[in-house]
Amino acid sequence: MTVTRNPTKPPSSSSDLLEVDTRTGERPGDRYVRVLQPFAESFRRRAPGHLLVTEQVLRPHGALGTAANLLRRVFVGRRLASEGEINERIGPIKGLAVFASDNISSSAYASEEIMRVVVAAGAGALALTMPLTVAIVVVLGIVVTSYQQTIRAYPSGGGSYIVASDNLGKIPGLVAAAALLTDYVLTVAVSIAAGVAALTSIYPALFGWRVAVGVTFVFLLWLGNLRGIRESANIFAIPTYVYLVAIYGLIGFGLWRVATGTLPTYVPPAGWVAGHAVEALGLLLIFRAFAAGSVALTGTEAVSNGVPAFRPPESRHAGQVLILMGIFFGSIFLGISFLAAQLGVVPDPTEQETVISQIARTLVGAGTPFHLLIQLSTAFLLVLAANTAFADFPRLASILGKDRFLPRQFQFRGDRLAFSVGIMVLAILSAVLIVAFGGSVTNLIPLYTVGVFVAFTLSQSGMVVHWWRSRVTTRGWRWRAGLNGAGALATGIVAVIVGVAKFALGAWMVLLLIPLLIGVMWAIALHYRDVEGALALNWTGQALPVRAPRVIVPLSRLDRAAFEALAYARSISSDVTAVHVTDDRADLDEMRRRWEAWSGPVQLVILESPYRALMAPLMAYIEATETMDPSRPTTVVLPEFVPRHLWEYPLHNQTALRLKIRLFFRPNTVVIDVPYHLRNGRAGHR
Amino acid sequence: MTVTRNPTKPPSSSSDLLEVDTRTGERPGDRYVRVLQPFAESFRRRAPGHLLVTEQVLRPHGALGTAANLLRRVFVGRRLASEGEINERIGPIKGLAVFASDNISSSAYASEEIMRVVVAAGAGALALTMPLTVAIVVVLGIVVTSYQQTIRAYPSGGGSYIVASDNLGKIPGLVAAAALLTDYVLTVAVSIAAGVAALTSIYPALFGWRVAVGVTFVFLLWLGNLRGIRESANIFAIPTYVYLVAIYGLIGFGLWRVATGTLPTYVPPAGWVAGHAVEALGLLLIFRAFAAGSVALTGTEAVSNGVPAFRPPESRHAGQVLILMGIFFGSIFLGISFLAAQLGVVPDPTEQETVISQIARTLVGAGTPFHLLIQLSTAFLLVLAANTAFADFPRLASILGKDRFLPRQFQFRGDRLAFSVGIMVLAILSAVLIVAFGGSVTNLIPLYTVGVFVAFTLSQSGMVVHWWRSRVTTRGWRWRAGLNGAGALATGIVAVIVGVAKFALGAWMVLLLIPLLIGVMWAIALHYRDVEGALALNWTGQALPVRAPRVIVPLSRLDRAAFEALAYARSISSDVTAVHVTDDRADLDEMRRRWEAWSGPVQLVILESPYRALMAPLMAYIEATETMDPSRPTTVVLPEFVPRHLWEYPLHNQTALRLKIRLFFRPNTVVIDVPYHLRNGRAGHR
Repeated sequence: MTVTRNPTKPPSSSSDLLEVDTRTGERPGDRYVRVLQPFAESFRRRAPGHLLVTEQVLRPHGALGTAANLLRRVFVGRRLASEGEINERIGPIKGLAVFASDNISSSAYASEEIMRVVVAAGAGALALTMPLTVAIVVVLGIVVTSYQQTIRAYPSGGGSYIVASDNLGKIPGLVAAAALLTDYVLTVAVSIAAGVAALTSIYPALFGWRVAVGVTFVFLLWLGNLRGIRESANIFAIPTYVYLVAIYGLIGFGLWRVATGTLPTYVPPAGWVAGHAVEALGLLLIFRAFAAGSVALTGTEAVSNGVPAFRPPESRHAGQVLILMGIFFGSIFLGISFLAAQLGVVPDPTEQETVISQIARTLVGAGTPFHLLIQLSTAFLLVLAANTAFADFPRLASILGKDRFLPRQFQFRGDRLAFSVGIMVLAILSAVLIVAFGGSVTNLIPLYTVGVFVAFTLSQSGMVVHWWRSRVTTRGWRWRAGLNGAGALATGIVAVIVGVAKFALGAWMVLLLIPLLIGVMWAIALHYRDVEGALALNWTGQALPVRAPRVIVPLSRLDRAAFEALAYARSISSDVTAVHVTDDRADLDEMRRRWEAWSGPVQLVILESPYRALMAPLMAYIEATETMDPSRPTTVVLPEFVPRHLWEYPLHNQTALRLKIRLFFRPNTVVIDVPYHLRNGRAGHR
Repeated sequence: MTVTRNPTKPPSSSSDLLEVDTRTGERPGDRYVRVLQPFAESFRRRAPGHLLVTEQVLRPHGALGTAANLLRRVFVGRRLASEGEINERIGPIKGLAVFASDNISSSAYASEEIMRVVVAAGAGALALTMPLTVAIVVVLGIVVTSYQQTIRAYPSGGGSYIVASDNLGKIPGLVAAAALLTDYVLTVAVSIAAGVAALTSIYPALFGWRVAVGVTFVFLLWLGNLRGIRESANIFAIPTYVYLVAIYGLIGFGLWRVATGTLPTYVPPAGWVAGHAVEALGLLLIFRAFAAGSVALTGTEAVSNGVPAFRPPESRHAGQVLILMGIFFGSIFLGISFLAAQLGVVPDPTEQETVISQIARTLVGAGTPFHLLIQLSTAFLLVLAANTAFADFPRLASILGKDRFLPRQFQFRGDRLAFSVGIMVLAILSAVLIVAFGGSVTNLIPLYTVGVFVAFTLSQSGMVVHWWRSRVTTRGWRWRAGLNGAGALATGIVAVIVGVAKFALGAWMVLLLIPLLIGVMWAIALHYRDVEGALALNWTGQALPVRAPRVIVPLSRLDRAAFEALAYARSISSDVTAVHVTDDRADLDEMRRRWEAWSGPVQLVILESPYRALMAPLMAYIEATETMDPSRPTTVVLPEFVPRHLWEYPLHNQTALRLKIRLFFRPNTVVIDVPYHLRNGRAGHR
C-alpha cells in the first residue's frame, strides 16, 4: 500500500478555466482570450479557484428545454438570486393577507361550528352560541397579548418549536413541531373544504364535485406558493380585504336593522326539521361546542413563526399584524354570532348552506349581488386561508431540516426562494386528507385544533421559562412571565377541553400521529448524527492514501465497447484482468484464440460455468482475488453500451445492471461504467 | 494522448488464483497451498487462465439465501449442468404426454365447438356435426402424413419458422413465427379455460371463480415447467394416459349401447330452450363450424418443433409420437361426435356443462364415479395440454433470440436447462388473456387457430420447395413434394376458411397482431445487426489507447466519504480537481479555509451559484474543462454514502443520484461511485 503524503501539486491545469494551460506553449495572451471567450458568459472569476456562476448557465437547452422554461416563467416566475431574499420580504398590509388570512377566515365558520354542536340539544340550546363566542374571544385576547411578547423576544422567528426547544428542551420542541406540522396539513384541508362549502351554498350543482374542486384548489395553491412569499401575498391580499369590506358591510347592515327593529323574518333551510333534542345539554356538549369554536384561534401561531418574512423592523411589523388580526377576527366572530342569534338561524343539517349565507340571504335577499359578493369573497378567502399554512409549514420544515429532524431536502429553496419540497409535501398530504374525508368540513374539524393548542401551551410555557432565565437583565420580567403564564394556562385548558371533547370523534388519530411523528423525527436526527459522527474527519495534515486499484473487467464479447473498457481500465491501473464467464466450450475456445491473437497488455481469465450461472462465479472470483491481496481496493470496470433510443435499453446491458446492483453493496469495491455511446453512426468514446 | 502499444505484461499476479504472487518473496510451496485452500472447492484449474466453476460457488449465503435455495430445490429441483442436456431428453411415451397432450386434449371440446355453431340454425342442424368431424379428421390425416416428412428432413427441429425461413425466405419465416407465438399464448389460455370449464361442469360453485382458478393453473404450469422438460413430462404423463383410458372406456361403452340398442334417454341441460333457428343454414355457418372444429389440429406443429427434445434417434421418436397422436385424437373425436349425434345431445347455452359431461351422465349416470373420472381426467388433461405450448413457445423464442429477432435473454437456460424467460413471458401473457376474456372458452376460440393454419401452410409450402431443391439427391422427390403440396393446400384452405369465418368474431385481432409482431421482430433484428456492426473491431494487433483521465470530484462536505473519493481519484489519475458548488457565502469561506489548512495534493474549485442551482453549474464546468483539453476523457468521481438500512436511503445521495443520471448520457464521460459503507460502526472502505 503506497501512501503519498502531499506529493507535488498536480500541474496547474485548466481547473479554474481562466488560467493558461502551461503545456500548450502558446502565447499566454492568445490562450487566455481563446479559452475565456466561450465561458466568460457562464462564469466570472472572483479569486483563483473561485468562480461565480451566472444566470447564463441556467439557460435552457433545446426546443423542449425552452418550452419547459417558458412554462415555468409564466407559472412560477423569473429566477431570484439568493441575495435578493430581503427584497422578497413584506410589510404589515401584505403580512395581514399572508399570515392572518387563516385566522380571519375562521370567522366564516366558527359561529356555525358552535351552533352545529349545541343544536343537538334542541333549537333552544342555540342561545348558548353567543356566550361561547365571547369566551373564545377572551381566550383569543389573552393569546394575542401573550404572543406579542414572543415576537419581541424572538425577532428571528419565534414559532412554538423554537421557543419550546429553546426553553423547555428538545422533546417539548418536537412535540410542538409535530403538533404544528399535523395542524398545518389540517388547516389546508379544512380551509379548502370550507371554501368549497361556501361555493356550494350558492352553486348547489357543485356539491357532488366538492372533492375534485378542493383538490384543484390545493394544486393552484401549490403553484401560487412556488412563486415565493411576496408574489403570493400580492395574489392573496385582494380577497382578504374584499372579505373584510363585505363582511363588515353585512354586520353593519344587520346591526342597523336590529337597532331599528326592522329585522326580516328568517326561513330555515329546506332540510331543516325542528326535531327533539337528541342529546342532553351537559358539560361535555358545552365543551365540545367550545372546542368546535376554538378552531378560530388556529392562525395565531403563523405570525410569530413567520417573523423573518417581514421587512425590518420585523418584530414591529409582525406585532402590528397580530393585533390587527385579533381585532378583525374578534369583531367579525362576535357580530356573526350575534346576528345569528337575533335572526334565530339554524345550521343546515345537509351542510349545503352555511350560516353566513343564511344571514346574508335573510338580510339582503337570496341571490342578490351582495349575497353573491359575501359568498364569493368568503369562498376565496377560505381557500386562500390555506395559504397561511403554505407560508408556515415549509418554513417550519426547513428549520427542522436544518436541525436534522427532517430530511435535508426541506432546506432547499427553489427558483423563487420558496421552500419547494415543503410546499410539495404539504400539498400532497392535504389533498390526500380532502379525498379521504370526502371534502367534508364537519368530518375534518374534530382532528383539527388539538395540535395547535398543544403547541400554544408549550410555546407560552416556554416564554415563562424564558423570562425567568433573563430575570436579571429584563425589567418587569414578573408581569411578562405572568402574562405568558396566563396565555399558557388559557391555551392549556383549551387543549385539554378540545382533546377530551373531540377524542372519540377523531382527535385520537392526531394524538396517535403526534408521538409517531416525533419518533420518526427523532430517528432521523439520530441517524444523521450517527452518520455525521462516523463521517467526521479532521483533514488538517491528513495524508491521502493512494493505492493503485486491482481492476477486473468482465467481458462477454470482444467488441468496441469491451475495448474501450479495457483501455480505460489500463489508464487507471496497470493491474487489469479481463474475466470471461461462459458455459459454451466453443465460445471459450474462440475467446481464448482471439485473445492470444490480440496479445494486448491485459491478462484474460476464463471462468467455465457449467451451471450457466454468471453472477455467482464472478463474485466468487472477486472474493478470491481480494483474499489473495487484501491491501488494495477492487475496481470492476463494466463496458456499458448506450443505445440511441430509450426503447432499445431492454435489449442490452441486463447483465451489467444485475452486476452493478450486486456489487454496489459490496464494501471496498468500486464499480465503473464505461459507457459506449452509439450516436449518429460514430462512436461517442474518442 | 499517450498510446501504449502492448507495453510489458502486467506483473503475473494472482489473476488465475493458483499462481504465486511473485511480489511476496515467500516460498512458492507455502504460498501455493495457503492461497489454493479456500478456493479449491470453488474453482478447478483447467489451464493457465482457465478456471472451472464448481457447484460450490452457487451455494447459498446466509439464512435467507439458504431458505430461498431450499424452496427452489423443492419447487424447481436440483441444478443441472449444461452437459447433462442429453439426459433430459425424452422417448415416445413421455413425448406423447408433452407434445401431443395439446392435440389430444382438443378432443374434449372439438365436437362441442362445432355443435355450438351449427345449433344457431336450429337443433336439426346438429346433424351436421358428424360430417364436419369426418372432414376435419381427413385434414388431420393429410397434415400428419405431411409432417412426417418434415420431421425426417429436419431432425434438429423443423418448426414452421425454420422450414419457412430456410426455403421461402426470412419474411415468410417471421410470419410463421409470429403466427405461432400468438397461437401458443392462445393455446395456454384456451386449454386452461376449457379445463376449468370441465371442472365447473361437476362443481358449479366454482363457476364464479373461473378466472382465478385459471390464473392459478397458469402459475402452477410456470412452476412445473421450470423443472425442465423431462420432469414436466413425468408430472404430465399420468393425466394423459388416464384420460385416454377413461375416454376410450366411455366411447366403447357408448358404442356397445348403440350396437345393442340400449341407449338411455337424454335430458337436455337446465338452461336449454329448443328455440327457433336464429340463423339460416348457409355456407358461412358451415365454414364457421368447420373453423371451430379445426382447433383440433393446433397441436400438430409442436412435435415437429420439438424434435431436439427427443432421445436419439430423434426423428423416429418424433414421427412415432405424431402418428400415435393422429390415431388417438381422430378416433376420440369421431367417437364423441358420433355418440353426441346418437344421443341427440345439445350444447349447454350457459356453458356450464360440457358435451362430454352430458354424454357421460346420460350413459353412466350423473355423479357416478365414472362420470367424475371422465370429468376430472379431462379437466387435468386440458390444463396440462397448455404444457405443450410451454414446451414449444420458449424453444421457438430461444431460436428467434439466437437469430436476433427477439431479445437475447430468451436464449438463457435456467437451473434446470429450461428456457426461463420464454416460460415467464408465456405465463404472463396467457394469464392476461384469461383475465381479459373472463376465462370463457367460447370468447377465446375465435382468436385461435388462424395463426396455426397460417404457420402450417407456410411450413408445408416450404417443404415443397425443399424437395424441389434437393430433387437431384432425393429419390421420389416428386411424390414427397406432392404429399407436402397436398398438406399445404389443405391447411391453406382451412386457414382461409378460418380467417373468413372468424374474422369479425375476433380473428381480426390476431391478423392485426401478427404483422405488428413481425415489425417488432424485424426492428429488433435491425437494431442488433446495426449495433454489432458498429461494435465490431478486429483486435488483432490493435493498440490499447491509454490516456490518464481528467478527474473531477464534486464535494458537498469535507467528510470521510469525500476523503475516500479523493483518495480513489488520486490513485487513478494525477489530474484531480475537487469542485464545491454553494450559494452560501459562509459555507464557501469555511470550505476554502479548511481546504487550505489541509493542503492536500488536490486543487479545489468553488463554484458560487447565486441561483441555488447545482446541476447546471457543474455540467457547465465539466463542459468548459473538456473544451479546454478535449484529448482526455472526463471522469467524475462521486462519494456515495451507503447507509446501514434501506429506509435510510432517501436521507442521502439525492444529489449523487441526479448527477449520475445526467452524466450517464454524456458521451466521453465516465462516472465512478466510490461507496462509503457504514456497517457495524466501522467504515467499510479500508
